[in-house]
Amino acid sequence: MTGRVTIVGLGPGDPRWLTPAASEALTSATDLIGYGPYVDRIGERPGQRRHGSDNRVELDRARFALDLAEKGARVAVVSGGDPGVFAMAAAVFEAIENGDPAWRELDIRVEPGITAMLAAAARVGAPLGGDFCAMSLSDNLKPWDIVEKRLRAAVEADFAVALYNPISSARPWQLGAALKIVSEIRSQDTPIILARAVGRPDESIRILPLADVEASMADMSTMVIIGASTTRLIERPGNEAPYVYTPRFYGVRP
Amino acid sequence: MTGRVTIVGLGPGDPRWLTPAASEALTSATDLIGYGPYVDRIGERPGQRRHGSDNRVELDRARFALDLAEKGARVAVVSGGDPGVFAMAAAVFEAIENGDPAWRELDIRVEPGITAMLAAAARVGAPLGGDFCAMSLSDNLKPWDIVEKRLRAAVEADFAVALYNPISSARPWQLGAALKIVSEIRSQDTPIILARAVGRPDESIRILPLADVEASMADMSTMVIIGASTTRLIERPGNEAPYVYTPRFYGVRP
Repeated sequence: MTGRVTIVGLGPGDPRWLTPAASEALTSATDLIGYGPYVDRIGERPGQRRHGSDNRVELDRARFALDLAEKGARVAVVSGGDPGVFAMAAAVFEAIENGDPAWRELDIRVEPGITAMLAAAARVGAPLGGDFCAMSLSDNLKPWDIVEKRLRAAVEADFAVALYNPISSARPWQLGAALKIVSEIRSQDTPIILARAVGRPDESIRILPLADVEASMADMSTMVIIGASTTRLIERPGNEAPYVYTPRFYGVRP
Repeated sequence: MTGRVTIVGLGPGDPRWLTPAASEALTSATDLIGYGPYVDRIGERPGQRRHGSDNRVELDRARFALDLAEKGARVAVVSGGDPGVFAMAAAVFEAIENGDPAWRELDIRVEPGITAMLAAAARVGAPLGGDFCAMSLSDNLKPWDIVEKRLRAAVEADFAVALYNPISSARPWQLGAALKIVSEIRSQDTPIILARAVGRPDESIRILPLADVEASMADMSTMVIIGASTTRLIERPGNEAPYVYTPRFYGVRP
């Protein structure tokens, strides 16, 4: 038997966002590997081994998956959202590049998933309806000056921007610094979306003008979306939250 | 009965990428509205009305959907990929903003889907594993100088870039112009992914260095992904295509 590693996107919390292809990959695996809370989202199956681990050991986890596959296992490495977006896929390929040459002969697949920014955007309207960027605010793996330079470039070029990993107890100041950069360039009434735990029972979503946003409103489960200059609110009657969308056209409507 | 419009992401071609939530929205609809080939992907259901239309009439289609919902219909507006990414969601919200105020009282939802860049990325590895931008190369709705400015900013700030709508018979020169801009800034061996019809029977994927890419290699079903400066190939034995990934770390590995 030839081993296999499939890096599977679970999507955001709601199981109704797990694709049939991802479900199949989970069902046919002999071993599930991933950050504990993601593994916990998957129903137990007789005979299937489960290897939950801590959040900060992506590369060890990737090597462990490749080792098991080399011994013949069919491994599913599980990832929240899409595995290719600030998640496990890059860690697995990094492990392959720098690891046992035999790993290059394994059957490696990536099963895409609904990534958090798309789920968050869907909840409020279509804020990513024009050109947009996705950035991780984590400076664990890249220097902060790169983050700053990219964010500034994205905002100056009037992309909407989705910020992953905006804040954590170990990285308390980065989101505040990012919002300050945005404020230097974009109008104070730019719509900002703070979408926490989308698709989970504790989901909460706020839409605020840039002037009113504080870093303390976000936590590590929050997706922050910064509107472009063209991003608009559509007010609704009663107590309904407005819709937020970025028109497809730019400048004068043709 | 209160009408409803759900803008549903079908994902790329493969039905195994259609989420259960999207399936439910399709099943419970009284009316399906969308670009003909997308409507054709959905199995017929007794009593469900199907309204396929041409590709270039998004706003008319959106208004038609809202009109039907106002009369009590449960409408699913279908979109390839994710409806919030260069697709129907922005058109529906644009129609709401500028249309009958009663439309603001309707139940409007967006069901996210796997967007083409994530499916394309998954097929080759993890090229979007670092910060990235998504841009439409279409200048039907925004002036070309905005496209150019954004692309230049994204490449200079070393984002990977996913190009939607790279080329069509009505827009034959834009991709060539875009590649020229990329070539001025990024190295000639930058990996470029041309992923055509991902998830469909006629899927074809090429991975080429920037120097070897010509605009004629793409068509309107092609997703073009431009690697960042850190995007790497992992060569594999035999005739296997290399993996392409962008490491999570930037600069020196911590």
